[in-house]
Amino acid sequence: MKALEEKILAEGKVCSGDILLVGGFLNQRIDTDFIFQMGKEIRDLFADARVTKIVTVEASGIAIALAAAYYLKVPMVFAKKSSAKNFFGDVYKASVHSYTHGKDYEIAISSEFLSPEDRILVIDDFLATGEAMEGLAEIVKQSGAELAGLCAAIEKGYQGGGDAFRARGIRVESLAIIDEMNGENIKFRS
Amino acid sequence: MKALEEKILAEGKVCSGDILLVGGFLNQRIDTDFIFQMGKEIRDLFADARVTKIVTVEASGIAIALAAAYYLKVPMVFAKKSSAKNFFGDVYKASVHSYTHGKDYEIAISSEFLSPEDRILVIDDFLATGEAMEGLAEIVKQSGAELAGLCAAIEKGYQGGGDAFRARGIRVESLAIIDEMNGENIKFRS
Repeated sequence: MKALEEKILAEGKVCSGDILLVGGFLNQRIDTDFIFQMGKEIRDLFADARVTKIVTVEASGIAIALAAAYYLKVPMVFAKKSSAKNFFGDVYKASVHSYTHGKDYEIAISSEFLSPEDRILVIDDFLATGEAMEGLAEIVKQSGAELAGLCAAIEKGYQGGGDAFRARGIRVESLAIIDEMNGENIKFRS
Repeated sequence: MKALEEKILAEGKVCSGDILLVGGFLNQRIDTDFIFQMGKEIRDLFADARVTKIVTVEASGIAIALAAAYYLKVPMVFAKKSSAKNFFGDVYKASVHSYTHGKDYEIAISSEFLSPEDRILVIDDFLATGEAMEGLAEIVKQSGAELAGLCAAIEKGYQGGGDAFRARGIRVESLAIIDEMNGENIKFRS
């Protein structure tokens, strides 16, 4: 998505070599008009995928997942990062390792919100090593639903998570794929 | 909002006396069509308020805040619950007591995302004792912006938070106000 690449170059900030800050439009502060443009793009990418539900994980995946859900006209479900919070009854859960925070955490979705009849599109703001997406895919598997595909707003291609999913035959569409990031020098996959 | 009251009666579940579970449409699983109906309602309620920005707190406020931001055509900013995560530079922050979890936590917004020129509408999914809203209002005050009002999808009127804000002259509009909740018996303010 050309407009996203331009926005990353114009407004993104690279910190400590490997951290891309897009808090000015994608998380923390949401550029409402732009996030709905991204939602529309996701709808176009997955128009043929018969998606019945979108799944993401709190908190920064929620906005982009909702924008896509708006255009795909399907419900959106977000996994919570602690299984203790307001869960009554059965949950599907997975353990996720966070490289950013250097620890494991658990993500969970009440089993009542996913069904084997669903075709699920998993959406997140970032896809790097793929740990969070892997956890979400694991939850989809537990539910018996079909995984229609994975979609990230920004994929850090050089971290390999997206390509590893593709190598397993999983459909991955990212709105922008960064293949190189050295200081302020960002190269997108063409 | 009549449709929300009906939805709460039809789909909400009351647990342990005082916990109203609306995870089937307002958080965890988002009823996309319905959350945008609520967003439109919020736009109608605050159409005269010259809102320039919407502020909420992660995670369950994000969806309804974004739906309202869509109709009000303004950016949305969400406070994070830990000031350590991906913050570079100055932040506005406040301490919030959670009765649900029995502890205090900190919420924070990068100072670059709010300005004294803003007129801010604070939105959250629930308003009970008002602790989270108070923290968000405190952050708005620190930024020098004006508080245009507070809006919750569901206000637990009997817990007094909303009325305490109103007594201080703060505009509070909730889409549904519950004045009594005894087991499955829910009474709305008319």
